[in-house]
Amino acid sequence: METWDAIRARRNVREFADTPVPDGDLERILEAGRIAPSASNWQPWNFVLVTEREDLVSLSRVWRGAGHAAGAAAAIVVVCPIQDDPRRRELLQYDVGQATMSMMIAAADLGIGTGHSSIGDQELARSLLGFPEDRFAAYFFSLGYPREGSLRPLRRMNRRPFEEVVHRGRW
Amino acid sequence: METWDAIRARRNVREFADTPVPDGDLERILEAGRIAPSASNWQPWNFVLVTEREDLVSLSRVWRGAGHAAGAAAAIVVVCPIQDDPRRRELLQYDVGQATMSMMIAAADLGIGTGHSSIGDQELARSLLGFPEDRFAAYFFSLGYPREGSLRPLRRMNRRPFEEVVHRGRW
Repeated sequence: METWDAIRARRNVREFADTPVPDGDLERILEAGRIAPSASNWQPWNFVLVTEREDLVSLSRVWRGAGHAAGAAAAIVVVCPIQDDPRRRELLQYDVGQATMSMMIAAADLGIGTGHSSIGDQELARSLLGFPEDRFAAYFFSLGYPREGSLRPLRRMNRRPFEEVVHRGRW
Repeated sequence: METWDAIRARRNVREFADTPVPDGDLERILEAGRIAPSASNWQPWNFVLVTEREDLVSLSRVWRGAGHAAGAAAAIVVVCPIQDDPRRRELLQYDVGQATMSMMIAAADLGIGTGHSSIGDQELARSLLGFPEDRFAAYFFSLGYPREGSLRPLRRMNRRPFEEVVHRGRW
């Protein structure tokens, strides 16, 4: 898909078809995250790919907004080193935002829908995924083909108008 | 450009050709940021587009790593509401990461290079851009055609190996 179409086709998907996503597509999406930029190239992320139904159902319990994982074809959990310094915590969030956005655009390009979730219950996530004590699960997103309507560029999105958001030269 | 090519063609560019970037291309890049996803769709951003040489030179002084702005064709400054709550500050950074990544991929698609910068001197940024007291400049990125070598998918990037970053099923 053309880039501009993929960017406009990305939307939050929370209900997925039963169709599995090919391994090669999941790998490309993960690769988009792997090559994302980060502050001083610190790459503060590991990605855990979850595809077993039982694990997806468990993952759906890590937060009240995580239910969509139960019916997804897969999920990618972004696991990061715990930061003590508040400024580093903010930097990490920015970089994780960059990496997940790149993965979600790469997914949209393949017709694969994505839906974010926060992770509230870190102990549940840890017992499910087995990541070390000095890491935390920052976010995950579900993946799969949308149950209703394939991804295509949206004509209208629920966003603030361009002229309100954009300033030329000065605020 | 195909999405997968644009994602792999994006790299940090800090030296720019003198060629201006067409207004329509800048608008498309800004549009990619405008439609980016955010927590509860709060869209915590305004974008100030800077294209005057004098302003770009001033902008290059907001941080020690901001020098590339002086020779850029343009810069986009992401201005956000100041958050008192640390959790909201992290959430904001994540969302700004998403929006800037989307803009940088949209730029790469058009052959336009981008380079991030933090913003250290908020008062200089504020006097230059005129944003209100309850906002801060979170980041900016410079834009322009690369002085050397057009953007094309990179075969090698300086990143941790795929098998180190990605875990299947469990860490």
